[in-house]
Amino acid sequence: MKVLISNDDGIFAKGIRALAEVVREIADEVVIVAPAVEQSAAGHAITIRSPLRYTKTRLEGLEDITAYRVDGTPADCVMLGVANEGKPDLILSGINIGSNLGFDVTHSGTVAAAIEGMTMGIPSIAFSLRVDFSKELKLDFSHGKEHIKQIVEMVSRNGLPNRTLLNVNFPDAETKGIRLASQSEHSYEDSVIERIDPNGKPYYWLSGKPYGQDVPDTDYTVVTEGYTAVTPLHFDLTHQSYMSQLSKELGL
Amino acid sequence: MKVLISNDDGIFAKGIRALAEVVREIADEVVIVAPAVEQSAAGHAITIRSPLRYTKTRLEGLEDITAYRVDGTPADCVMLGVANEGKPDLILSGINIGSNLGFDVTHSGTVAAAIEGMTMGIPSIAFSLRVDFSKELKLDFSHGKEHIKQIVEMVSRNGLPNRTLLNVNFPDAETKGIRLASQSEHSYEDSVIERIDPNGKPYYWLSGKPYGQDVPDTDYTVVTEGYTAVTPLHFDLTHQSYMSQLSKELGL
Repeated sequence: MKVLISNDDGIFAKGIRALAEVVREIADEVVIVAPAVEQSAAGHAITIRSPLRYTKTRLEGLEDITAYRVDGTPADCVMLGVANEGKPDLILSGINIGSNLGFDVTHSGTVAAAIEGMTMGIPSIAFSLRVDFSKELKLDFSHGKEHIKQIVEMVSRNGLPNRTLLNVNFPDAETKGIRLASQSEHSYEDSVIERIDPNGKPYYWLSGKPYGQDVPDTDYTVVTEGYTAVTPLHFDLTHQSYMSQLSKELGL
Repeated sequence: MKVLISNDDGIFAKGIRALAEVVREIADEVVIVAPAVEQSAAGHAITIRSPLRYTKTRLEGLEDITAYRVDGTPADCVMLGVANEGKPDLILSGINIGSNLGFDVTHSGTVAAAIEGMTMGIPSIAFSLRVDFSKELKLDFSHGKEHIKQIVEMVSRNGLPNRTLLNVNFPDAETKGIRLASQSEHSYEDSVIERIDPNGKPYYWLSGKPYGQDVPDTDYTVVTEGYTAVTPLHFDLTHQSYMSQLSKELGL
């Protein structure tokens, strides 16, 4: 089993190290290709207007793993990694500092790396750790260790359906077990803050409080209840059951 | 009807002007909030590490339309536009130079603006014009004019289902009519090009040839056949029909 690992917190983040340490115990070969610097909320951006560098990187204590950093986005890393190192059996992304729940998956760099792998037909999994940013950061990546092994081994054995990736979120404390979860409508509210600069002119910060509805068996609720939430995301977005109504409404 | 228009080609692009010219004939109020410079392949990136400016902009011939440019991404524009101008009845994005088909929707800035609107619960539509970049650019945005009116008026009347946006692609020539289309698996191949810099060191360009399978009634095929392709994209990505198999495979 050959595994390519990326993330969006950058190649020197603790989360990618934690993921690599677990995966090298069960994989034959692990390659890390990750952004040189943090790319959070980079979405599925691809760098097409400027060239990219691909720089061999020594990671202390992980000298058995070939690692490259890229001055680009998570999706860039997956494209370059697959082109330069050959097609892996699995692509893993994370472990992200902070959960990727509900509509987060549309702008998460962590999930974007897995989307890029999925579009190449490679089974791909995104891993994220829930973090309460209002408290002092604990960042205990050990909670998910056994579940990473279990999920990676299962996907390595069975593969994933076409156009599908797994989105995995670990709770902020010892996990109570794995539960499957639907994608919630988790989003943010109050997300624009206006300030005035020293010249009297306004400028804006995008921010926002996480907003989650407590719907049973959704990613938001399952991880809030202390479980590892596993959500299979299917990138055939066509709203088939709406097609006949839409057809009538457009007079087709 | 109050409409917010954005795009990813930038506020001075021809496509957003073409869209605004059509929409102002049927809307009570049109506001443009768009990137200051081109943001293609920006994905659904959101700017959270630096502040943003929101600058009133005069668009020649469109002086009746309030317009602002933002030094950020399409998703930034929608967040700032809604916060500063109030919630519109509709969010429109485009008309993009180049189609957004198949897996393009996961890294299109044009679609990202519509995704941002959809997550806010506002009916949102992305418009793109197919372009053959290997030929001399014609860029005739007039092809879609009547269809824009028809689609915008329909959505204004009926709304859209929860978590759903419309992705509309116009053909490269006079359109033969509107057809509903499923999202294809359109993607790119051979997408990394290695070059050597003057110091003998390699660098990389991400590129690629469009790769589309000719599957009937998909966005790629419908627009290739010369029709306006309308695809309802549903952002509940949960792969429900795979859940019971996945549950067994994980031993849950």
